[in-house]
Amino acid sequence: MSFEGKIKAGDFKKVIDSVSRLVDEIKLQITEDGVQTKASDPANVAMVILSINKEGFDSFSLDEEMEIGLDLDKLEDILGVASSSDFVELSTEDGSTLDVEVGGFEYNLSLLDPSTIQEQPEIPNLDLPSKIIMEGKTLKKAVKAAEKVSDYLILVTQGKKLTIKAEGDSDSVKLDLEEEDLIEIESEKDSRSLFSLDYLSDMSKSLSSADRVEMELGSDYPIKLKFPIVNEEGKVEYMLAPRIESE
Amino acid sequence: MSFEGKIKAGDFKKVIDSVSRLVDEIKLQITEDGVQTKASDPANVAMVILSINKEGFDSFSLDEEMEIGLDLDKLEDILGVASSSDFVELSTEDGSTLDVEVGGFEYNLSLLDPSTIQEQPEIPNLDLPSKIIMEGKTLKKAVKAAEKVSDYLILVTQGKKLTIKAEGDSDSVKLDLEEEDLIEIESEKDSRSLFSLDYLSDMSKSLSSADRVEMELGSDYPIKLKFPIVNEEGKVEYMLAPRIESE
Amino acid sequence: MSFEGKIKAGDFKKVIDSVSRLVDEIKLQITEDGVQTKASDPANVAMVILSINKEGFDSFSLDEEMEIGLDLDKLEDILGVASSSDFVELSTEDGSTLDVEVGGFEYNLSLLDPSTIQEQPEIPNLDLPSKIIMEGKTLKKAVKAAEKVSDYLILVTQGKKLTIKAEGDSDSVKLDLEEEDLIEIESEKDSRSLFSLDYLSDMSKSLSSADRVEMELGSDYPIKLKFPIVNEEGKVEYMLAPRIESE
Repeated sequence: MSFEGKIKAGDFKKVIDSVSRLVDEIKLQITEDGVQTKASDPANVAMVILSINKEGFDSFSLDEEMEIGLDLDKLEDILGVASSSDFVELSTEDGSTLDVEVGGFEYNLSLLDPSTIQEQPEIPNLDLPSKIIMEGKTLKKAVKAAEKVSDYLILVTQGKKLTIKAEGDSDSVKLDLEEEDLIEIESEKDSRSLFSLDYLSDMSKSLSSADRVEMELGSDYPIKLKFPIVNEEGKVEYMLAPRIESE
Repeated sequence: MSFEGKIKAGDFKKVIDSVSRLVDEIKLQITEDGVQTKASDPANVAMVILSINKEGFDSFSLDEEMEIGLDLDKLEDILGVASSSDFVELSTEDGSTLDVEVGGFEYNLSLLDPSTIQEQPEIPNLDLPSKIIMEGKTLKKAVKAAEKVSDYLILVTQGKKLTIKAEGDSDSVKLDLEEEDLIEIESEKDSRSLFSLDYLSDMSKSLSSADRVEMELGSDYPIKLKFPIVNEEGKVEYMLAPRIESE
Repeated sequence: MSFEGKIKAGDFKKVIDSVSRLVDEIKLQITEDGVQTKASDPANVAMVILSINKEGFDSFSLDEEMEIGLDLDKLEDILGVASSSDFVELSTEDGSTLDVEVGGFEYNLSLLDPSTIQEQPEIPNLDLPSKIIMEGKTLKKAVKAAEKVSDYLILVTQGKKLTIKAEGDSDSVKLDLEEEDLIEIESEKDSRSLFSLDYLSDMSKSLSSADRVEMELGSDYPIKLKFPIVNEEGKVEYMLAPRIESE
């Protein structure tokens, strides 16, 4: 049982970053297709599903499927020293330690026992009525504006219009995005859901550099936010449970 | 009773910033000439007088004079998201809420009841003997240097020379500015006054980008610092009470 | 007894910085050759030896050798306001106060009584078997990588190879530097010593911009790190006691 993979440091940083915003430790599945993980935050409010195709790696070799346990903080800390254009070489013989070679340095990290890490969540199968594609930076800006007045965000679709708003005790803010402000909007039914800005803020930092973020929305239903990483050879999907509006 | 005004975000940020260094809440008078406010800090040591001509606005319409109560922190917070070249559109129908449109976002802020805000101070009518015009960055640099050794600043004019100095328990610093280092200096009588660096530090941050700051000085008298904003269509005037030198 | 010296602010900042990483107060000897100091940190684990030739100064005049007591924090604080290309003019009449003129400002700082400052350390006369010359930034990068996994650094020479490594409880990191990765390596005998990363981290910040750092190394012996400053007209030498490896 052994794995060797080589990937650009800049890409790998973004991968780790997108997951570490929700959890500290993950089980990573390494298969002949690439690497995958699923995780939910400790409060079970948000989930992340990550996959990177084998083609996203500069080189990738595996003799047997395996699951390894990763401490994401440790990995982020190490990658912090690398420049984005460096290559990271990852290898493990037996799943107990991970060799990370980057910028001339050879790190040897002890891996976590996957059985000690929280079970991977079941992903609910949701068919949401409103599908919007927008730039990541638009969503990030809206989240930042909303944080000035409230701690939750309201997302509303009406026909071909997406309204992002927040209502605090005394102040409110609203952003109307018409079809021409978005890359795409399809809505079978008007939607309206509320979400915690704490989570959206973390997620939006990670997706802010994505050219295309797919958002799926319903009424009092979870939101899905999907965006490509590693030159479209990987993808991150966030799901976030709604906050139910008190009357 | 309604007001609508449009102004460059960069200009409006500087306006708010120059006042918020002394107070958190202000009464703003909106008249057919433009907007004005006066405020003193809670300790009554410093005052700020602000005015922006109607011409400083990209558009300005008002049907009746009004006074509104502004929470400056809240406004600064919101403007922080805007880029300097954005335009801010301000409007209020009845003085109870303020609509702020900037960068596509529409904020609705509740205004303060002006009667709950500290009375505007009487501005003393002072005719000070020394009048100096200098670059804002010169004053800011001097304040920064003085902070290294003391918590008050001494300003002295002798003929056509301005000396800025500070004396700590063990160390001191001095900057001599001759006529050629200043834009202008006129002094009917030599002056010498001491001022708290706490206040001057805040003020100097605000005036540091001004090409021309007018300083008026006497002996154990308040200092006046006046500088233009909003492309010369507005002005800020600070007054700061002296600290009396202990013998 | 009087001294006057003029030196580039950027150079003088680096000089002060290299010493202030270990101690807050120093005795500085001013002789006809230039200025010198030696100091050890409060725990007596590290030493710094500093000298600047008279030629490192833009101008230098002295009528009698003297020793002055400097508060380095205070000096760093003042130099922080200067731009690197400014000149600093230092002068003292009697060793009780120091005049520092920089950027138009004239500071007058009280000097410390040298007799109140810790005695200067004896410098042990060490002839260490491994001598390596490398770029400062290589060492800094290695120290930063090591800090991710441990609180001490292991330096090993084997023939013409220098290995820098660190071993934490669960993780480790290693950097092999062959002859071609270094400027020079001469080793009479293989060496291996451990050093505290706390100290190396401070030192490496100071030497990171040096093109050539001379390292001398033995087995369980102190390390010497020597690098030029002030356009080769001065030098800094650090010595750091080893940590003895527990079996």
